[in-house]
Formats: sequence, C-alpha cells, structure tokens
Amino acid sequence: MKAFSDRLIERTRRLGHPLCIGFDPHLAHIPPAFRRGSMAPGDPETAAAVGAFCQAAFERVAEHAAAIKPQSAFFEALGPPGVQVLADLLRAGRRAGVPVILDVKRGDIGSTAEGYAGAYLAADAPMRADAITAAPYLGGDSLDPFVGAAAAAGGGVFVLVRTSNPGAADLQDLKVDGAPVYEAVARMLAPAAEKLMGAQGFSGLGVVVGATWPEQAPRVRELLPKSLFLVPGYGAQGGGAADAVRGFVAGPNGLEGGVVSSSRGVLFPEAGHTEDAAAWEAAIDQALDRARTDLAEAVSR
Amino acid sequence: MKAFSDRLIERTRRLGHPLCIGFDPHLAHIPPAFRRGSMAPGDPETAAAVGAFCQAAFERVAEHAAAIKPQSAFFEALGPPGVQVLADLLRAGRRAGVPVILDVKRGDIGSTAEGYAGAYLAADAPMRADAITAAPYLGGDSLDPFVGAAAAAGGGVFVLVRTSNPGAADLQDLKVDGAPVYEAVARMLAPAAEKLMGAQGFSGLGVVVGATWPEQAPRVRELLPKSLFLVPGYGAQGGGAADAVRGFVAGPNGLEGGVVSSSRGVLFPEAGHTEDAAAWEAAIDQALDRARTDLAEAVSR
Repeated sequence: MKAFSDRLIERTRRLGHPLCIGFDPHLAHIPPAFRRGSMAPGDPETAAAVGAFCQAAFERVAEHAAAIKPQSAFFEALGPPGVQVLADLLRAGRRAGVPVILDVKRGDIGSTAEGYAGAYLAADAPMRADAITAAPYLGGDSLDPFVGAAAAAGGGVFVLVRTSNPGAADLQDLKVDGAPVYEAVARMLAPAAEKLMGAQGFSGLGVVVGATWPEQAPRVRELLPKSLFLVPGYGAQGGGAADAVRGFVAGPNGLEGGVVSSSRGVLFPEAGHTEDAAAWEAAIDQALDRARTDLAEAVSR
Repeated sequence: MKAFSDRLIERTRRLGHPLCIGFDPHLAHIPPAFRRGSMAPGDPETAAAVGAFCQAAFERVAEHAAAIKPQSAFFEALGPPGVQVLADLLRAGRRAGVPVILDVKRGDIGSTAEGYAGAYLAADAPMRADAITAAPYLGGDSLDPFVGAAAAAGGGVFVLVRTSNPGAADLQDLKVDGAPVYEAVARMLAPAAEKLMGAQGFSGLGVVVGATWPEQAPRVRELLPKSLFLVPGYGAQGGGAADAVRGFVAGPNGLEGGVVSSSRGVLFPEAGHTEDAAAWEAAIDQALDRARTDLAEAVSR
C-alpha cells in the first residue's frame, strides 16, 4: 500500500502544479444551471442539485487537480441527504484515483477521535477519504487515532497550525516562551510526522498553514521539514501563488511539498454563474487553467 | 423565544440535578438486546440497530435528564445512515422538550462556520440542536457565526476551554504571560458571553471544562462568571460528582450553572450488556437513578 504522501507528491510532480480544488458548495454560490426547487437547506431537491453540481464539477476538474478538498460543513448543512452527496463525492474521488482531502477539522478525546477515524480514514470507513483535516486544541493524544488509522490505511492527516482568518491571532499567535502557540503545535506534531513518512521524503502528517500569512510558513517548514503543507485561502481569500508556496521546498521539478487549495476561484468563477451549461463548462475550464498555470509558474521559480 | 440558558437552568432546578446523558453509541458497547447483523460500520442493519438502541434509551431517560449530549463521531462513523439516526435523535429531543447539546466540536473560518451554524443551530437547520460544542483554535471570529445563530434561534454554544484527556496539557496548559492558554481562551470568550445572556443570569455561551481537572474549573468560573459549564467525563472517565460541580455557583436550590455529562455510566452499565430487554431496562433505570442521586447530593451541599 502506497503512502498518502507519495501519492500526493508524485501527482503534483506529474501535473507540474500543486492545485487542490476545494468543493465548498455554499447554496448561494450554486450556479443557475444546477439550481432546483427552493434551494432551502431542508428541501430534498436541494441536496440533489448540490449533488449534480458536485458531480459535474468533479468530472470537469478531476484529471487536472493535484487533489480535491470537500468542505464538510456545506454538506452537513443539508442534513443527511447532504452527507450522502459528500459520500458520493468521496467515492467518485477514490474511483478516479484523485487524492481527496476531506476538510472536517475534527478533534476530540481519544475514544471519540477513534469514531472519527473510523468514519473517514479506516480501510472500511463508510465515508473514506485519503486524508482529513484535524484541530489540535485537545493535544497530541487526541490526534493519535487519526495517525494510527492513516498509517494503517495509507492515509494522511493535516493538522491546523496557522490559519488565515483575522481571528487566528487570538490564540495561535499568543507567545509561549517567546514563540507563538502555533510553533508549539508544530513542535508537538514532530513525533507523529515520523510515523507517516513516505518513500519520497514527505510525511502524511501534514499541516494547514494559511496562504495569507506567508511569513509563518517558512518557520513551520523549519519545525516540520518533511510535513505536507495544505495551504488554503489561495484565490478568493486574497493569497497569491508566490505567497502560497512559501513553505514548499526544492524538488526534482521545482518547489514541492504540499497542495494549495482554491475554494471559490475555480469552481465558482463569476462567468460560471449562468443558466447556460456550456458557458458554465467554459468558465470552469478557464478558471482551472488560470489557477494551475499561476501555481505552475510559482513552483517553477 | 426563551434563551437556551434559561431553559437549561430552569430544568436543572426543577429536576434537582444537572445530569446530562451522553449518547455515545460506540458499536462495541451496543447491548446484545439491540444488535443486528454483522454490526460492521458499513452494514445497513448496523445503523438500524443503533437507531433502535438510541430510541429506547432516549425514551427511558428523557424525562429525568437535564439534557442529552449525542456525540456526533459515533453516528458519523456509520456514514449517511448513521447521520440520519442522529437527526432522528435530535428530533426526538426537540419533540420531548429535552435540551439537546450536540457534541460536534466544530470550528472553522467564518464562512465555513456559517455552514455549521446552518446545519445545527439555525431555526431552519436540518439537524437542529439546542446547543453545540465548538473548538476555539481558529479564534473569536470563527465562533461568531455560532453565537449569531444561537442568539437568533435561542440556542447555545459550549466552547472547549480545558478538556479532561491527558494530552490536554500539551497546548491548553502552555503558559502565556504566566497564565495557561485555556485562561486566554476563557478571556477571549467574555464578549460573546454577553451576547447570549438569559433572564436567569446565565449565558448560553458556555464552556467545556473537564471533570477530571477540578482545580481549573473555579478559575474558569472567575473569568466567565455567567457561562454555563458543560462538564464531561463524569463517571467512566473517573471524575466524581463533587469534583464535577466545582465550577458551579450558589443558586436558589443549591449549586447550579451547567450540566455534568455521563457518557457511559448511564447508557452502558455492565448489567445492561444482555440479551434480555427487561434486564436492560432495569440496568438503565438503576444506573440513571444512581447518577442523578449522586449529582443531586453534590449540588445540595
């Protein structure tokens, strides 16, 4: 069984860019070509509309994406039918061999974290993803079940270290012995990173480090030299490509070491907000092309 | 519309105890009387078995519980059918007027947190609970959508402050200017606590403070004098009743100010692990009676 980090790194090398495509199907953003019924969260047609959108979007982008990153919140917001749409998307990703990073930001005490590991990471998980995101507030032992399940099933775990929202500083930047809390979190992860090492020199114990705070990425890279980076916030949240890859390292074909996620720029371009299915396809293709070219340039420098 | 904190506090006063009953349907713990098929996570009969267990357990305990606290992980672990079982339990709680604290520990950047708020707290949420648990690592702005939705719909939010697992110290106890990180989190929550104040003097912006670390509860109470406490870890995790209510304050009928959650002691007593439905009922009744008597004594001192 191949390590998650190897699958991801080999794919970014082959594609020549680290573009991860976020699937954040906020109802307000679903294009007219896919809207059905009231589009209220409780309407059963709504989940069907979101499902049709996700399927069409997945088919459009899958072969060009280093990974996809469904954001669980927007599926959970539709109740059980929305969770079924997410399950279908996860299955489509696995079937196509596209690495799926499920953005759930779970974190709980050990016995409960085992439940989440069983849901999303285990070989027999009913909602199996290649990797999940996780929150560190409960400490190292709360992450152990995720690391264990990832090690057993060839998966990965991306732990929040430094996020890109304005309030991130409230807690993550507080100083502990002169260094910010997020550095303490990075140090806490080092032993687990050893457990998910792949053959290509990267660990599937990855970190989430926001694109709009590029000055922090090199510091996290120093502390976790082998960890995959998941950099959200590229595009809509204002992060540029060069900033997004500041935590990457030199590889055989350019900078590498993770993925950069666009959560709105690719799947919800302004030109795609149309009734016209062909115009929607063209808008997605153009947005995808722009993002991967932009990131390919950033990693080739 | 009544504030969540008023509903919860009035109920604990009426019942004379703060017992919250955790619904943590780990598959290994489901009693033989309810088991069906393979009990593997992917087997459709498994979710049905868990659903039958939850329904029977809810009917048995509902009128005697200050609140119930379903742990989302164990439902998610069964995939979409498990999430439907959780939705059914949430609906049963609402119908019976039992406060439901959904333990999801969500936390994400603002626009995503809005998705979770729409899933669990909004008036039209498909999985509506009275309150949810939330993680603080992303900072104050990540909690705003939860506070806003709770204010609009009469709900509550319990933010992780100091948990009871051994690894909690890794991050929560790090010293920032001489005080632990969890105190900084408590201070961060003070403005939001003002926004969810009820008529009985408590705020629906609550905190999670573990029962096995009683020395920390009084300190959090000083920093957040009006916040409801959700104290997990009573019973199975080793916390005693007197320790569990250390963060409570004097009220008209004794100590009050939150709920104490038993996640295994009541619903999974050893004597209830039987094929015999009547013996299971008797075991639940006895465990319930023991826990509420124990907590009633602790708050009457």
